[in-house]
Amino acid sequence: MINKDLLQDIIENGNEEEQQLINLALKAIERKREKNTIYLSSFLDFTYELPEEDYIELTFPMSPFLLNSLGIIHGGITATIMDTTMGTLVTKSLKRQCVTTEMKINYLKPGKGKNFTAKAIFLHKGKTQCVVECKVYNDENILIAASTGTFFLIE
Amino acid sequence: MINKDLLQDIIENGNEEEQQLINLALKAIERKREKNTIYLSSFLDFTYELPEEDYIELTFPMSPFLLNSLGIIHGGITATIMDTTMGTLVTKSLKRQCVTTEMKINYLKPGKGKNFTAKAIFLHKGKTQCVVECKVYNDENILIAASTGTFFLIE
Amino acid sequence: MINKDLLQDIIENGNEEEQQLINLALKAIERKREKNTIYLSSFLDFTYELPEEDYIELTFPMSPFLLNSLGIIHGGITATIMDTTMGTLVTKSLKRQCVTTEMKINYLKPGKGKNFTAKAIFLHKGKTQCVVECKVYNDENILIAASTGTFFLIE
Amino acid sequence: MINKDLLQDIIENGNEEEQQLINLALKAIERKREKNTIYLSSFLDFTYELPEEDYIELTFPMSPFLLNSLGIIHGGITATIMDTTMGTLVTKSLKRQCVTTEMKINYLKPGKGKNFTAKAIFLHKGKTQCVVECKVYNDENILIAASTGTFFLIE
Repeated sequence: MINKDLLQDIIENGNEEEQQLINLALKAIERKREKNTIYLSSFLDFTYELPEEDYIELTFPMSPFLLNSLGIIHGGITATIMDTTMGTLVTKSLKRQCVTTEMKINYLKPGKGKNFTAKAIFLHKGKTQCVVECKVYNDENILIAASTGTFFLIE
Repeated sequence: MINKDLLQDIIENGNEEEQQLINLALKAIERKREKNTIYLSSFLDFTYELPEEDYIELTFPMSPFLLNSLGIIHGGITATIMDTTMGTLVTKSLKRQCVTTEMKINYLKPGKGKNFTAKAIFLHKGKTQCVVECKVYNDENILIAASTGTFFLIE
Repeated sequence: MINKDLLQDIIENGNEEEQQLINLALKAIERKREKNTIYLSSFLDFTYELPEEDYIELTFPMSPFLLNSLGIIHGGITATIMDTTMGTLVTKSLKRQCVTTEMKINYLKPGKGKNFTAKAIFLHKGKTQCVVECKVYNDENILIAASTGTFFLIE
Repeated sequence: MINKDLLQDIIENGNEEEQQLINLALKAIERKREKNTIYLSSFLDFTYELPEEDYIELTFPMSPFLLNSLGIIHGGITATIMDTTMGTLVTKSLKRQCVTTEMKINYLKPGKGKNFTAKAIFLHKGKTQCVVECKVYNDENILIAASTGTFFLIE
């Protein structure tokens, strides 16, 4: 049961951040209905492109949803973004589904900024698995995190 | 601006999953207002306890928000849970704030189940940083992921 | 061409450490001739046993060969020992050859001591790969390093 | 006590590989006496240079000492080389001693070749620790391993 009183209060009196969160949830439901996009992706609100072969760039805006208690991007969110970036590179480049088997992350600088870009390349393209490297920069081009991941190809 | 038509439609005609997502958002806003809990934590809907010194157990239920496109827990969510579990162990045991400097995850089995438990212990308690080990089990006690992380102590 | 003058000088006037190193080399050659043991293993001078199923203990003595410039065990040696311990566990338990595809090491305490023991267990035993966890203790039972590794099964 | 009979036999009848190993040991002792170089470094027989600021290249030849039972470079040796390359970059660039706190390695291709080159750059240069990235190529410029490491600065 949805708490309608709280919802009504947020709609009428909620601050910008609260309204933004409700909008993220609505957008996530809409995109799930239309394109079967997973909810988490909509909350991250990213877009990506492969401007050249075997290379991906994924960008996403800062939002209240991404923050940890120190007011910077939650390390788990950075991990999610890097996992998504690397997995999408594998899927789009090889036209194969994949699962992450391992991932290593180094958090290098506080995740502060208005926008962030994750860039990933292959370190190895094998028949059964791929190894990918990913780096995340903020809008001042500061490297905030670096990772590698191994992706097992399925089907 | 909140899309009120969509919201009304979800309230009246949305499926259980959609109503659950709206409720997660409402609960997140409520807990932020009351306890300043970060939104992401409320979406993960976890609880934890330290049943003995230097040991934490964190549990969370499966929810539509956690899923990837294969219908299992998103690797980024597992990473977020493990980062949270290990960071909370450090914070609660040492009464110090900390930041994650690096984390390594091995995904061992598909994240399927109704409930999940993350368990973490210290590998090293230093003056400037701690190394922690975390394992995540599903409700059939199957180990689905293992990780280690390094946490830099602040203040 | 062997430098016989230097060799003669070491035999007659070399210190204990130098004679120990020559002996390590001789022993390595002898074991290569007799059992085809790789040279590096003889230099590490380890022994191992699997006291129970799916569990290995490997022990090795401190020696001048193992030291870094700070007088403690070289991180690369610790890595070699852990790689060997985990790979041997896989090979002996599954009767399959394997190659390491990735390894993560946390160095926790300085590698000081007279003897060291590496202990490894499986985190995952799959059809194509295994994930193993290894911990190295000194003779005072202090945990000096922890690692995980992924091993791809061949043949 | 040195086994002089075995030593005499190797000098007179040993194959090229065996004589090479004795020579590595002699060279290691000589360099320890002259420059206090650690033995392990001499066995790896590497040289390095920093052709530009914050960048190192370290090269080493294949040798029987480096091989595993499959006839390729032992993963522990690759780890040792990468640890050495990254640690040397930190030491030479910052004029500070350091210890490795963690290292992650992905083994990408079999370590075959006549010569190998490890290349390392900084991902982060902090006041208390540095994060470094290292890649190892064979003489056909094939990437055989990639790693990152964290180095804690001392003194």
